Parts: sequence; C-alpha cells; structure tokens
Amino acid sequence: MLLPLLPSYELMMRFSLFRSFVLLSSLFLALFLSACASPQLRGTGDLGLVIERASGSVILVDTSKRAPYAHIEGLGDLSHASAVYSRDGRYAYIFGRDGGLTKIDLLEARIVKRVMQAGNSIGGSISQDGRIVVAQNYTPGGIKAFDAETLDLLSEVPAEYAPGKFSKVVGLADLSGNRFGYALFDGGEIWVSDFSDPKHPKTQRYPAGMQPYDGLVTPDGRYYLAGLFGEDGVSLLDSWLPEQGTRKILDRYGRGEEKLPVFKMPHLRGWSVAQGRAYLPAVGRHEVLVVDMDTWKEVGRIKVKGQPVFAMARPGGRQVWVNFAFPDNSWVQVIDTLSGKIVKTMEPGKAILHMEFTPRGENVWISARDDNKVLIYDTATFSGIGEFAAKSPSGIFFTTRANRIGF
Amino acid sequence: MLLPLLPSYELMMRFSLFRSFVLLSSLFLALFLSACASPQLRGTGDLGLVIERASGSVILVDTSKRAPYAHIEGLGDLSHASAVYSRDGRYAYIFGRDGGLTKIDLLEARIVKRVMQAGNSIGGSISQDGRIVVAQNYTPGGIKAFDAETLDLLSEVPAEYAPGKFSKVVGLADLSGNRFGYALFDGGEIWVSDFSDPKHPKTQRYPAGMQPYDGLVTPDGRYYLAGLFGEDGVSLLDSWLPEQGTRKILDRYGRGEEKLPVFKMPHLRGWSVAQGRAYLPAVGRHEVLVVDMDTWKEVGRIKVKGQPVFAMARPGGRQVWVNFAFPDNSWVQVIDTLSGKIVKTMEPGKAILHMEFTPRGENVWISARDDNKVLIYDTATFSGIGEFAAKSPSGIFFTTRANRIGF
Repeated sequence: MLLPLLPSYELMMRFSLFRSFVLLSSLFLALFLSACASPQLRGTGDLGLVIERASGSVILVDTSKRAPYAHIEGLGDLSHASAVYSRDGRYAYIFGRDGGLTKIDLLEARIVKRVMQAGNSIGGSISQDGRIVVAQNYTPGGIKAFDAETLDLLSEVPAEYAPGKFSKVVGLADLSGNRFGYALFDGGEIWVSDFSDPKHPKTQRYPAGMQPYDGLVTPDGRYYLAGLFGEDGVSLLDSWLPEQGTRKILDRYGRGEEKLPVFKMPHLRGWSVAQGRAYLPAVGRHEVLVVDMDTWKEVGRIKVKGQPVFAMARPGGRQVWVNFAFPDNSWVQVIDTLSGKIVKTMEPGKAILHMEFTPRGENVWISARDDNKVLIYDTATFSGIGEFAAKSPSGIFFTTRANRIGF
Repeated sequence: MLLPLLPSYELMMRFSLFRSFVLLSSLFLALFLSACASPQLRGTGDLGLVIERASGSVILVDTSKRAPYAHIEGLGDLSHASAVYSRDGRYAYIFGRDGGLTKIDLLEARIVKRVMQAGNSIGGSISQDGRIVVAQNYTPGGIKAFDAETLDLLSEVPAEYAPGKFSKVVGLADLSGNRFGYALFDGGEIWVSDFSDPKHPKTQRYPAGMQPYDGLVTPDGRYYLAGLFGEDGVSLLDSWLPEQGTRKILDRYGRGEEKLPVFKMPHLRGWSVAQGRAYLPAVGRHEVLVVDMDTWKEVGRIKVKGQPVFAMARPGGRQVWVNFAFPDNSWVQVIDTLSGKIVKTMEPGKAILHMEFTPRGENVWISARDDNKVLIYDTATFSGIGEFAAKSPSGIFFTTRANRIGF
C-alpha cells in the first residue's frame, strides 16, 4: 500500500518519538529498579559479615534469614582481619593484615572507601561516639585515628616507647570517653589514648610486664587486661581509676615453668564475663581458667579438649563456647557456667576459627575454614539449624558489636 | 506566520506526543523520588522513638543527628505506653494503655498495622528469636501472643489464678528460650510461659507474695524479680533453676511499718545492675537501695532528693541516673557507682518522666513532659547538648533494645 509523502513522514516522526519515549521510559524504569530494588530498604540490626580470609572477600549475612545476601571482593589480605561497625549499623570497617582499612556499606553491598594505612596491621576499634576509627599497627608500630565518615587521617600515636624504638601494638579496645586502651608488645606497656580532641590525642603510659601479646576490655568498659607472653601473668588497669596504675594478677596464667609448646596464642578478645566471673583460655594448657572479678583471683580451672583459642560467653552468660588450636581445631566445647562443667562436645567441621552469637544468644555461627562452610547452631538444643558455603571463612562479625563497649 | 495544513497537524502531533512524554517522564520521576528519596536507605542502629502521651503520637528520632526526623499519629491512648523492637531494628511495637498494639515502620515512618488486643493494657515484650510479641493486660487479665510479622493472634494465657478469678498482669519481660516472666497483681504469683511452641504455650506458676506491682529480669536474663505492694519485700525467681521456686528477699524493701504516702510507684524495669550490684528505687522513701547480687542482701542506701521513680544505669554501669515522683519531678540526680555518692543534681525541666541512654552511654535523652521538650545531655560532662520540641513526651525507646534481654 502506498501512502502520500507527508502523512508517511508524519508517521515516521510519530514512530521515532514513540521509540524515544519507550527508550527513555525504559531508562527511567531501569534507573528506578536499580536505585530502589537492589539496595533494599531494610533494618540493619540483624546483619553481619563473614571474612573469607584467603580471597580478600567478605560475605554479607542476614541473621534472621540465617543466610548470606551479598558478596564483596577486593579487600586485600584478610588473613588476620577484624571488623567494627558504625553506630547506625550500616557501615563496617574492616582491618586487613596488610594495613588496608576498608569501609563497606551493608545496604548497598559495596566498598565505600579503602585506604592503605600501614604496612602491617592486626585490627582496630571505634570510639564510643562512633566518629573515630582507630587501627593498631605492627609496622610502623603505633595507632592511627581516622574520621569514620571519610576515612581521612585525624592523628596518630607512634608507639615510641624509648627514643627511636617503636613497638608492635596489640589488644586495642575502646574505653568510655572516646579513649582507647592498647598494649606495646616490645615496649612492655599499656597505653591509654584519649581522642576527645581527635586531632590532638593525649596518651598515658603504664608499665605492663614482659611482652603483652593481646588485651581486652571488660564488657562494662572498666578494666583493661593484657596477657603476658614473656612472663606468667596478666597486667590489669582499672580505667575508672587509672591513677592507681597497673597491677599484675593471675601469676599462674601463662605457660608456667614447663614452657609447654604453644600451637596458637589464645585470643583475649574472646575472654568471657559471666555471673561476675571471667573465663580465660589458658596459654598452652588444655584448660579454661575461671577468675573472680571482685578479687581477680583464680577460682577454678576447667579441663577442655585442647589448647583453647576463643572462650566466648553466650549473651547472658549461661554458656561459654570454646574452640581449639591445632590438632584439636575441629572441636568445640560448651561450658555451663552454672555447673562449671562441659555440657557439650561436638565436632562441627575442619579448622573451626571463630564463633559469633546472635544478639540475644539463641544461635551461634561457627566458621569451619577447611570445610569452606559457616555453620549455624541453636544454643539451647545444640542442633545444627543451617549452613552455607564460604571460602576459607574466619571471623564472623554482627552489627550488634556497634552497641558494645570494649570491641 | 502561516503554515500549511499538514505540517501544522504534524507539529501538533509532535507537540502532543512530546507533552505525553514529558508528563509520563514527570510521573516516573515523581515515582522515583517518592519511592527512593523519602524512605531513605539508612541503618537503623541509631534510631528510636519518643511517646507523645497526650496526643497518641510518636516522634521518630536519630541519635547520631540528635534530632527528630518524622512524626506518626493515630496510636490511640499512649498515657502509659511502652515499645519493643523487631530484631532487625526496623519495626517498633507500641503497647498503648487502651489495649492497642501498633506496629510502626521506622524507615517508611508509617503505621504498618494496628490491632486492639485488649481493653486495658500496660506494656509488652518480644521473644528472644524476635518472632513473638506478647502484650500484658489488666482487662481481661492475662497475656496475648502475636506473630511479630503479621500481628495475628497466636495464643493467649488468661491469668486465671483461681476458678473464675482473673488477675491484672504486670512486669512482663522476656527470658531465654522464648519464655516470658510476669506477675499477677491480684493472684500474688509469678508465672513463666514458654512459647517455644507459639500456639501452645506452657505455663509454670510460682507463689510471689501480696500484690506484686511490677517486675524485672536482670540484664543477663537469669533472675525474675517482682516488687511487692501488699507486703514488704521482693519475690525472686532464678529462671536458670526454676525448680527451686521463688524466695523472698529484701524484707525492708517497701513502705515499711510507717506506711509512707506513695506519690507514684517506682518502675522496676529501671532497676540498674552495675558492678554486681542492683540499684533499686525505694517505695515511698527518698532512697535508692543497693543490693549485692551474689547474696541478694541490701548493702547500702543512698539518700536522694525525692521518691525515686526510675533508677537507670548508664551502659557500663559507672553511673545511675534517678528521676522522681511529684513534687520533686523536675529533678534528676546522678549516682557514681564507684563512690556510692551523688555526683550531680540538676533540674532539666518540668515533669521529668523518662530517660534513655544511647547504646554506648555517651548521651542520655530526657523527656520533660510539662516543658514539652526532649533534652539531651552528655553523660561525662553533664552539659546539655541538644533539645527539641515534643508534645507531652513520656517514654523514650531506642532500637538497641532489640538486642537486649529482659525488656
């Protein structure tokens, strides 16, 4: 069929405009869907992440669905990585072994910013007000403070314990008043830096003993404890009464006279506080020590299956879950703090590296590195209630940490 | 200028199509903006709400910005209202005096669902796994369990303590294992209901004493305590060893032989635990009682300005903040738990009804009902750092409560 020229031209124009309209509409729709649908509007209180230590990646997880929901790559060397959270629970700050500090957005599932802040780093912390992220470094020895929003460097405290001598820094944890406590492995000291004026931190120094190898702050933010490697014992600082200085407690803590082989140093951050008692993984020995927190005296030892690495209290403190160093690292044991007895011994998988409880303690998530799995257990029945694949999973960190003191 | 007919028609068509295009594009843009911009993608860890008791409304607040961001109306009688949160921190469940249970979305700032579940209600709680919301009711006396997702009724436990006799229920709080503890004012008992099977709860009954008027669960979820109105003392149940039953403690707690006038009963939910000690508002007396939690014996009394209503520990437990009944209800006092002394006495405003700490305790938010204001203080310096208008504000509830046991 033939059509006169002009109407044909008109139709062509109409078609062209229609096509533009369809194209542009599609564009809007795509924009609409990408902006609205993919970063889903949701609460962040039940989110978290799992470190994939060998591949520089993290899995984002939902503890209500008990499942992963996203994967982020490009975080560098995560072989000894840890994470803290912004106070709104949306952002995680991940400290890599290579000195990389990466801020990720849990809602948009992407890296927001990444800075290489040191040559060799083993963790960090976030201030009480959530505005300052601090990394602890081996090389160069010291701590560095960053703006939590921008990751701009605010200030640093070099761990220069004697003129020209710098120490590895370990055991960094936040204290009240935007202060941080940490220990100097080479310097044998505990330092407390106050970042109330973030660009001009003020530091107090306290003697600790030989080679503090890790530290922790009690859940109330009061006591800073540093475990000693070079001698038996633990150094204690009461951060509410810092003028009293440090004192040494638990002189039977440590390897003792026999100098047992130590396959892996325990993580003090896992020290558990339950019912006024602290549960400490012994160094080298197959024991968990029980310490009365009023007197800081040892009041018991619980025999366990191997050299404990983490001893972690379930929220509320009724149970303490323990994992172990090689060759017993496929096992997990559960201590009932009421009876002081092991109530469960289980073998969840190969190379159990870490455990994290859901905020109110009903579940525990366990990483089995050499099974490439994360396993989820009901803490009341000890039954497995879920699992998912992860490449060499290590640390598991839930957003609830944002609300806690001493992380 | 004149144009030939057909080109003119063509132009008209083009214009009409163009107009359609613009209109539709605008529509998409509006849709895009309304769907994406207004419910902002954000974390929920630093959100909360303030009850406006006289107007049936709530103000949604952001504790990082220290400011309100939305207002929701239509929640009924909020004269004695409280709130709990979903485990993701996105939804609040608000229990109104009139028996209304309202689920609100903090991100979309709207009511998701509202049910009238009883005639007269005074609060509620949420289960450890976050799936069951339970309301406690005066009329009809008992508790009702709802699906946290849909607010569908799952089951109910009428507080029938003797054939045909129903009690007012008070002091409802969650325990581990999806259990709830509560007290029967008229029945003189403490009940523990296990909702592991949500449609078929199992209830255990324990004698409590005369007229328990409120209750609380210690922060570790272990002890349920009910304050007695009809006699001096507190009834205690160890929920880890419920087979041991209840026992009476603190026989000097209460009005005593003098039968002092009581202007307002203290809120037990505010009982503070700090450093192994509980701080209790005395009934009638101008005192806060200090109780050792190992022995449950009274170990001290601290004189305060008036009849205490709430005694609330700052996270970490270094401070306990106290407000008072009329005529001293414009005052707030702060106890330093280390020295046992009042370290601050201040008069923030008229009719101080409630206080809520930010998750790690750096700030406290205070409602001054008769000044129609919420005030924000720095807990280290006691300086005012913010305020905003609110109509007769009472309870302040932050999303951190989602992660806590015993609320």
